[in-house]
Amino acid sequence: MEKSGAKQSGRDIDLGNKCSSNAFRWAQKSFLNRKGKDGEPLAGLEGAFSNVLNFRGRQFGISSDGIGTKVEIAERTGIYESLGHDLVAMVVDDLAANGFEATDVSNILDVDYLDYDIVDKLMGGLWEAAETAGVAISGGEIAELGSRVRGYGDAMHFNWCATAIGVLPDNLKKPVNGRGITPGDIILLLKEKGMRSNGFSLARKILEKELGKTWHQQGYNSQKTWGQMLLIPSQIMCRIITGMINAGLIPKGMAHITGGGIPDNLGRILKMNGCGAILDHLFEPPDFVVQLQQMGGIPEKEAYRIWNMGNAFIIVADNDDIDRIMKYFILHNCMIRIAGKIDPTGKIKLSSRGAFPDELVY
Amino acid sequence: MEKSGAKQSGRDIDLGNKCSSNAFRWAQKSFLNRKGKDGEPLAGLEGAFSNVLNFRGRQFGISSDGIGTKVEIAERTGIYESLGHDLVAMVVDDLAANGFEATDVSNILDVDYLDYDIVDKLMGGLWEAAETAGVAISGGEIAELGSRVRGYGDAMHFNWCATAIGVLPDNLKKPVNGRGITPGDIILLLKEKGMRSNGFSLARKILEKELGKTWHQQGYNSQKTWGQMLLIPSQIMCRIITGMINAGLIPKGMAHITGGGIPDNLGRILKMNGCGAILDHLFEPPDFVVQLQQMGGIPEKEAYRIWNMGNAFIIVADNDDIDRIMKYFILHNCMIRIAGKIDPTGKIKLSSRGAFPDELVY
Repeated sequence: MEKSGAKQSGRDIDLGNKCSSNAFRWAQKSFLNRKGKDGEPLAGLEGAFSNVLNFRGRQFGISSDGIGTKVEIAERTGIYESLGHDLVAMVVDDLAANGFEATDVSNILDVDYLDYDIVDKLMGGLWEAAETAGVAISGGEIAELGSRVRGYGDAMHFNWCATAIGVLPDNLKKPVNGRGITPGDIILLLKEKGMRSNGFSLARKILEKELGKTWHQQGYNSQKTWGQMLLIPSQIMCRIITGMINAGLIPKGMAHITGGGIPDNLGRILKMNGCGAILDHLFEPPDFVVQLQQMGGIPEKEAYRIWNMGNAFIIVADNDDIDRIMKYFILHNCMIRIAGKIDPTGKIKLSSRGAFPDELVY
Repeated sequence: MEKSGAKQSGRDIDLGNKCSSNAFRWAQKSFLNRKGKDGEPLAGLEGAFSNVLNFRGRQFGISSDGIGTKVEIAERTGIYESLGHDLVAMVVDDLAANGFEATDVSNILDVDYLDYDIVDKLMGGLWEAAETAGVAISGGEIAELGSRVRGYGDAMHFNWCATAIGVLPDNLKKPVNGRGITPGDIILLLKEKGMRSNGFSLARKILEKELGKTWHQQGYNSQKTWGQMLLIPSQIMCRIITGMINAGLIPKGMAHITGGGIPDNLGRILKMNGCGAILDHLFEPPDFVVQLQQMGGIPEKEAYRIWNMGNAFIIVADNDDIDRIMKYFILHNCMIRIAGKIDPTGKIKLSSRGAFPDELVY
């Protein structure tokens, strides 16, 4: 099922995983270059969301990512200010998932040719996102690549990626990595209103087929176009996660829900201890995502792997800590709920809430 | 003169600088987010090659860059193994120019679609470069962006960028930044055999005009094609620079010669103290670069700004340290020479050695 979804979205997930594994194997060979020295990567972190580097006993997190084809929605709508939120969210929330406090983001903007006003809007949005995340934009690069970068329409085209670094808060001795998770632990979920930066290839394909080449201009409702809905900026959660840790609330594991959805991203932190999970109280997906799913006839099991379906971030904690964690998030006006619990099955079971609700097993 | 060169290469350098300044102004506003905290960017480093972050008194360098349109030469020739050297060189040697020991590199590969064998060659080359640089490839990301990435021919197209981090060697209390440079200081040069990762847009334009659309297949000499000449991998100098510093040889300033050539990159470390420089003993540019310049009729003054013209890296040191520094590099089989000296004029004067030798003043 996943494979056909993968093909529908124009991606071959198997080949993608094979290439990522290849890159990781080559990278791992290079770890020896820093053995016993500053910057030695911590081994055995398969499944982590960030890479961990040791600098004389102090552990740093580093994470690189881009915002993929969400950029096309900005090119279609002419709205550039919100992409910075997506870019910052992608990298800082991967750090947050391992407990790191994100400190700095360095970004690389590849363009075909330069448009000063668009660059200004992108960088202004990036600054705004940095405010939200509490990080410094410590530097970056703008590269003019001519026809190597293409996109929609006639304005400047671009691709945008970043690398974030961060450190462990003082009351964490090591990254949060899910190793201590045991059956009976509770799964908390943070809500997401939009698509974050994943699943856009499939979304664009469905909308073009259904609404034509200028789908982004079509009304989603009386206030918003489809373009505006898809562009909803990613929530940035790193600051509240660091706040939680600084308040002495230490989860056992966390997962940032990006490509691969809940199954792959929760799976990353469960596979090392063989646990499974039952999530029978997921957030409702945003209406526009449900409509997308219906239009495309995307089976529930695929939808939950390609899109976040309203779920931004998972926190797994001991039952005894749940009340205090819930209170912390509610106090900070953050939508959180108990979504399920850890079990010993090795499977992830979702009571799904998409267009075709079902009991899904991954 | 620079502007016409800029136009010939298909770039508007003024607009590029304007956009970079805009990005830097927005970024600078975000520095406050880390004031007094981990990851606070050091202010007042205009002209530095890397950004400097303070983590509880320990200073880290961070540098982001890509290899621009040199990628097209790999697509044309089908030779992918050497690009990793260019990518690593671009980021680690910017750190080296401020005295940082590069420790880790995180890379982002944007592709249109995936080709496993090409990814394998790129990542194998990246590993090899990491060995040379003494860094770990601590992580990365491969993003499939479909038609947003384009290039030459039918194989996988890609753009490739990276971020490196590093720390100060123990006997450096602060980054090397050129502040102590005074008239009379000596300028040392390290030699470069190829174009590193700069000036490819102009080179490609000249070659296509002169040799046709398949210029890369045309023989440069009996052994090598023009494609192979342009693909000569960048020398990676960070390790020998760190070795020099660890040997107690501390220069006053260093410059990594990339886009902007000697004038802009040496200019970066001289402008803060108003000094100038006379360089009357530059390396000879590689023959193929001189031929390129002749074919394109590129005026000497532009050639020295767009290409490195055989000069990879500048070290400015006190006259008393020169003998020991020279010996260190010669002992390590590294081509070094005394190229000139610092003067109080505020101008950079080159006795150029390109196709149209001249006395140039920038």
